[in-house]
Amino acid sequence: MAEMNSDGVSRRKFVGGALAGAALAAAPMPGLAAFAAPDAAASDDKKAVLAQIPGMHAENIKRLQEWIALPSIATENRNYPQGPEYMAKLARDAGFTSVKVMPTSGKAGVFGRIDAGAKTTVGIYFMYDVKAFIPEEWSSPPLEARLVQKPGLGTVCMGRGAVNQKGPENSFLSALIAFQRAGKKLPVNLVLVCEGEEEIASPHFGEVVRDPEVMAELKKCIGVFMPEAGQGRDGDVQVSLGAKGVVELELVSSGEKWGRGPKHDVHSSLEAQVDSPTWHLVQALNTLVEKDGHTPAVEGFFELAKLLNEDQKKMIQAYAATTGEADDMASLGVTHWVHDASWVDSLMLLESKPTINIEGLVAGYTGPGGKTVLPHRAVAKIDMRLVPDMTAEDTLAKLKAHLAKHGFGDIEVNVGGMYDPNTTHAESRLIQTQLATYRSMGLEPGLWPRSAGSWPGYLFTTAPLNLPAGHFGLGNGTGAHAPDEYYLIESTNPKVQGLDGAVGSFVEFLYAFA
Amino acid sequence: MAEMNSDGVSRRKFVGGALAGAALAAAPMPGLAAFAAPDAAASDDKKAVLAQIPGMHAENIKRLQEWIALPSIATENRNYPQGPEYMAKLARDAGFTSVKVMPTSGKAGVFGRIDAGAKTTVGIYFMYDVKAFIPEEWSSPPLEARLVQKPGLGTVCMGRGAVNQKGPENSFLSALIAFQRAGKKLPVNLVLVCEGEEEIASPHFGEVVRDPEVMAELKKCIGVFMPEAGQGRDGDVQVSLGAKGVVELELVSSGEKWGRGPKHDVHSSLEAQVDSPTWHLVQALNTLVEKDGHTPAVEGFFELAKLLNEDQKKMIQAYAATTGEADDMASLGVTHWVHDASWVDSLMLLESKPTINIEGLVAGYTGPGGKTVLPHRAVAKIDMRLVPDMTAEDTLAKLKAHLAKHGFGDIEVNVGGMYDPNTTHAESRLIQTQLATYRSMGLEPGLWPRSAGSWPGYLFTTAPLNLPAGHFGLGNGTGAHAPDEYYLIESTNPKVQGLDGAVGSFVEFLYAFA
Repeated sequence: MAEMNSDGVSRRKFVGGALAGAALAAAPMPGLAAFAAPDAAASDDKKAVLAQIPGMHAENIKRLQEWIALPSIATENRNYPQGPEYMAKLARDAGFTSVKVMPTSGKAGVFGRIDAGAKTTVGIYFMYDVKAFIPEEWSSPPLEARLVQKPGLGTVCMGRGAVNQKGPENSFLSALIAFQRAGKKLPVNLVLVCEGEEEIASPHFGEVVRDPEVMAELKKCIGVFMPEAGQGRDGDVQVSLGAKGVVELELVSSGEKWGRGPKHDVHSSLEAQVDSPTWHLVQALNTLVEKDGHTPAVEGFFELAKLLNEDQKKMIQAYAATTGEADDMASLGVTHWVHDASWVDSLMLLESKPTINIEGLVAGYTGPGGKTVLPHRAVAKIDMRLVPDMTAEDTLAKLKAHLAKHGFGDIEVNVGGMYDPNTTHAESRLIQTQLATYRSMGLEPGLWPRSAGSWPGYLFTTAPLNLPAGHFGLGNGTGAHAPDEYYLIESTNPKVQGLDGAVGSFVEFLYAFA
Repeated sequence: MAEMNSDGVSRRKFVGGALAGAALAAAPMPGLAAFAAPDAAASDDKKAVLAQIPGMHAENIKRLQEWIALPSIATENRNYPQGPEYMAKLARDAGFTSVKVMPTSGKAGVFGRIDAGAKTTVGIYFMYDVKAFIPEEWSSPPLEARLVQKPGLGTVCMGRGAVNQKGPENSFLSALIAFQRAGKKLPVNLVLVCEGEEEIASPHFGEVVRDPEVMAELKKCIGVFMPEAGQGRDGDVQVSLGAKGVVELELVSSGEKWGRGPKHDVHSSLEAQVDSPTWHLVQALNTLVEKDGHTPAVEGFFELAKLLNEDQKKMIQAYAATTGEADDMASLGVTHWVHDASWVDSLMLLESKPTINIEGLVAGYTGPGGKTVLPHRAVAKIDMRLVPDMTAEDTLAKLKAHLAKHGFGDIEVNVGGMYDPNTTHAESRLIQTQLATYRSMGLEPGLWPRSAGSWPGYLFTTAPLNLPAGHFGLGNGTGAHAPDEYYLIESTNPKVQGLDGAVGSFVEFLYAFA
């Protein structure tokens, strides 16, 4: 689902966060010397690695462009097995050893490691797949990854996967190559786990994680992170302590399964004589929310949902106090929060409430004007967002039981994918190292209870691994799942890092674990 | 809307009807001598006209094919003004004089007349527009009007508009040309009114009818009929005594109009914080029907709906007694009628009940799989079917009042088109002549209270004209509004007439008025 950077409008809402610190604002572009902690033992090595980055600029862009030109899309079976093979090659080029394409019941994963002889081992999560796209909707060909000017931001690389997630991942790989060029050892050991089905909710990634060899390596890790382009246009960065879970599914009402109504579309005049599977779906949907048109009404839905604790409420209050409600409303095109909540209360809802959302409705004739049909089939595309300690399995079971109880047991529930929610402690070394790294670069990262978007981090945070998991990286981009997705290359915004700054942030992060 | 022949599966249901008479079954193809009333005064003239038909076969097909090659589609502004100009040319070629393209606020109509010096004047209604189509869905190119074999039926002409309504209309024009070729005067005067917006519910056809010159001519008519391909595969023909009315509309729920929810699609996780226009639409729709998921629940909806009278009930009982419920269910893919009604009761419902049907639902992401959006807009495409004495205006007003009363006054009601119901007396000369003509051709036509489909006949049946109106014609075809629409050309089914038989039926009909 790859939702951590899912769209520009709401990105801040996924990760919360404070405004950028003044230090970065004063240190515009990307000489990176400002990032170096001046008195650290590894300081000279780090300087040598960072010094490689400007000279690698062109090849780092080219590597990203070539990767974008090879889109792997699981729903379209596009570029398999080329996608995982290419991922394996990228990993080898960046210094990973024992790199393996890992077959699963679905699309293959990729596994590799770097044994630097260090005392700390860190896990890295990559996705090599991208969201489907419609080239006609783009202002620049989505596989050409052209360099395009964005007023107020700079030069961006525009293409499918640019920010979700090839851009940040390529920047991480570039950081590893910078170590090679400088002739320096990594300060940590790395374990890389990649998948090619993230955009369909990672149905088989568990098979990669549970592979005995992979599991043995992951158990050595102090945590797992995914590279991201974590900066808003204000330069702000946030550290999320988990993510909501999600169940994505279709509810399908059909004459065939219902045993009433027609088995194919018939003329609409027959509605006088024949039941309508579409009305049946409307009635089923209507039972899923309360009269407020919002609060889930599925029996037991909130049973396992934890309330926010005091720490989490304070994070939200701090964010609300320093950010503008009006800007947020304007960018969303919203004039009232649900229930006319205040700004801080609306953020409390965002963080604490599980939801049932209709992503889409499809029935009968969907073109311009009308067509006199009685559709035999109607579909609602639904996502349910979960908070700890809800689980995807349990919530799905409750939904099915609710439908059956209310006379809609015939309605098919076709699950597209699901993630449990995940939680990572602020005190964990992974999170503390993220915070320390951002601070060493002059930023004041905000803490945020959890991303409202979802990713398969629960595979790391739950047994048997029970690892911290999160996202890290400077840089900027937007348009995941949308046309004109981009990743910032040359920043003209003094608060936001471009490609070199993003690469540098990963060098800093790795040294911060040492 | 052009729904009198709207689809093969349900065509019988629009017009009801009895089985074909044995006489036609015994008179297979298309020598038409069997049709001639042997002792009528006009008998020799009629024989001479009918005798022209076989020799015109190839040109009659060619004229249809050329017409199909020029599709006028109002929603696409396709082939205007070529469509009405071509219609005018066809009318002139068939002998109409004073033919005029009649501008309206929308697409132009066409008007013409034939003054044969006869004592009876008959009105003819034509549509020259066709339904939109998607060529990829067709097994034969929809504008090429190819001759295609249909097992059990014969050779058909397949193309958009073949049966709805260019095929039957071309057969009527062919009949007029047969009079020219035979050098015979028409036995009746004709007034032709054509429109190019029937498929969008004739929003401007009233302007044509109310034109002073047209109105003056229509006032001379004893009634108005539309050519149709009226035979089922059993050869049966029916005479409908009116048609249900219809209001076709979209209900649009949007953040913009509602003042709640987003004004553009946002990430689905925000549903925790932001209202959903899609849930709003679901809740509004849910108020439109009773708990049975079927009976309209709009306040006052049934207020003006007349019950069936005893004559109408008898027509339905007669039809139910002679037709197979199982075949009908099988062809519709239905195993239960609504409310588990019996066959005859389901037909009573079809004829007596006004309905609210959902033609289509469209919101947010409608492609394969899911996409994590909270849509800012959701649309339900609705048709409401009306029985006498309901009117479209009144029903629409009641729907709007209902929505406002239930807190959904923000939901836009965008009307695509509407027709009042219409009724014609069985004793009218138009209907009696139809019955007599069918009988003279060896058929035993059934009477049917009203078509469940709709057409703009109310413009003729209501003041100031107050004329009888109906449909007439032998022949067969199906697929109106669907792919692979066709009109039968060479019948291998002894019960069903092909092109020449259809042309002949119009010659017979015109003589029957004399």
